[in-house]
Amino acid sequence: MSERIDIAVIGGGPAGLSAAVNAVARGKSVRLFSAGENPLEKAENVDNYLGFYKISGAEMMQKFRLHAESLGITPEKGRVVNIMPMGDRFLINFGGNIVEASAVILAIGVAKAKEIPGEGVLLGRGVSYCATCDGMLYRNKNALVWGLAPDAVEETNFLSSIGVKVMLVAKGERPEELNSQIPFISGAVSEVVGEDFVTAARVGDDIHRTDGIFILRSAIAPAALVPGLETEKGYIKVSRDMETGIAGLYAAGDCTGTPLQISKAIGEGLIAAQNAAKFIDKSKS
Amino acid sequence: MSERIDIAVIGGGPAGLSAAVNAVARGKSVRLFSAGENPLEKAENVDNYLGFYKISGAEMMQKFRLHAESLGITPEKGRVVNIMPMGDRFLINFGGNIVEASAVILAIGVAKAKEIPGEGVLLGRGVSYCATCDGMLYRNKNALVWGLAPDAVEETNFLSSIGVKVMLVAKGERPEELNSQIPFISGAVSEVVGEDFVTAARVGDDIHRTDGIFILRSAIAPAALVPGLETEKGYIKVSRDMETGIAGLYAAGDCTGTPLQISKAIGEGLIAAQNAAKFIDKSKS
Repeated sequence: MSERIDIAVIGGGPAGLSAAVNAVARGKSVRLFSAGENPLEKAENVDNYLGFYKISGAEMMQKFRLHAESLGITPEKGRVVNIMPMGDRFLINFGGNIVEASAVILAIGVAKAKEIPGEGVLLGRGVSYCATCDGMLYRNKNALVWGLAPDAVEETNFLSSIGVKVMLVAKGERPEELNSQIPFISGAVSEVVGEDFVTAARVGDDIHRTDGIFILRSAIAPAALVPGLETEKGYIKVSRDMETGIAGLYAAGDCTGTPLQISKAIGEGLIAAQNAAKFIDKSKS
Repeated sequence: MSERIDIAVIGGGPAGLSAAVNAVARGKSVRLFSAGENPLEKAENVDNYLGFYKISGAEMMQKFRLHAESLGITPEKGRVVNIMPMGDRFLINFGGNIVEASAVILAIGVAKAKEIPGEGVLLGRGVSYCATCDGMLYRNKNALVWGLAPDAVEETNFLSSIGVKVMLVAKGERPEELNSQIPFISGAVSEVVGEDFVTAARVGDDIHRTDGIFILRSAIAPAALVPGLETEKGYIKVSRDMETGIAGLYAAGDCTGTPLQISKAIGEGLIAAQNAAKFIDKSKS
């Protein structure tokens, strides 16, 4: 296990970056885990974050990242699969590696995708959100990857490399980076089929037999990420201090509710970081 | 009375400017009233508002103001003396002029000055916070101005011009702009003296007889500004939606509590503006 850090920030959007910047400003050791692209990247024009005017979302994210980098914060790309509160610390499963942190700030945005039929009941029984974590279970077996996140192709190639007989389902055309021997289906999975264990996945009108399905979304539903985390209408419940109901666990940005706006995310990131820092100082004393 | 506006924003710091920008973005008519200089102006270096790095507070405020101006928002300098909730609208006393608004956002920062002995009990009985509002009451009488705000000299000259026998008490040297016939005392008022009505003010070891005292601070304590406004440890009590207990009245920034930071102010300004806009839309429908 790696060295214990003060604060793990989950999410590399405005809320996560603001949290990381402010945690460093408070003298805390920080790692920031980011699943990939932020929706802000695609905003044509942003006018309501004070200080910037007529700027594209991509330019703004670039400025945000440079600011963080100049303070020594480099987002680590990958998937946080789950977070275990251990009372005095947290164990974070970051793509199969365990990271130990005194406090955690969730800045995971909003999961746009809805759960599909069969997903919830078969989670852990053939349904997985993490290829690097669970891939070995499907060695010499059949698995299907539903790729909704940018890193899905890489993960599918990984599964193939460890001996999983894998196929990829994703929107659009066959990705160039997908290893040539891996079958590709253009489409979306609409149902996970199985009783005790996954037996198949439905894509359009077709049923594909499989032993396992990896659903790779950019975001994971908050309650699936942290056992016991309280949510309300899909958003993480927080106090004005950005505390969740779990001591040492904070949340900031879109994942805490509307308005889904940069300014709110930035402000909440700061509040979460300051309170996480205070929480750590208090625990140590 | 002037035309009724949608949203009056009280305060020209980061929270107020963010609120105004976001209210305009929601298509609302807005006026922004600002008492003068913001403490951010004096910050040597600001590093933790995402997107800006190694920037002075003065430069940052300049960027904030330019952003607001490019959306047609021009801060109006002056003193908001009190705000009357009228059920379906608010009446705002802006330096003696009444402004009517459907919703109000308080972004008034923190009042650093503490109430002095005698001030609270004699408020409205010789103690006033507004020269232009109450000046005429002291025509041909004696009054003393305690100048803690940048506009105190101007207000003292005004009182003199309408026939008040006025003197100015303030820190430091006699201000150049003060009319030459007005007496000046370098110091601070430490007590308001009087039983039913003000009779004198204490400055250091001296007692100065006077009929009235104008205490001109940049900020007014929130509870003195809006009757019935709920506060906690001097901060305005708000919900996560930046609502105060009074329908249509919102608050944002330092006045709602710690952390007293730009990012928090910006985020709260946005939330207050969006909810004030929603409140107006709902009232109209």
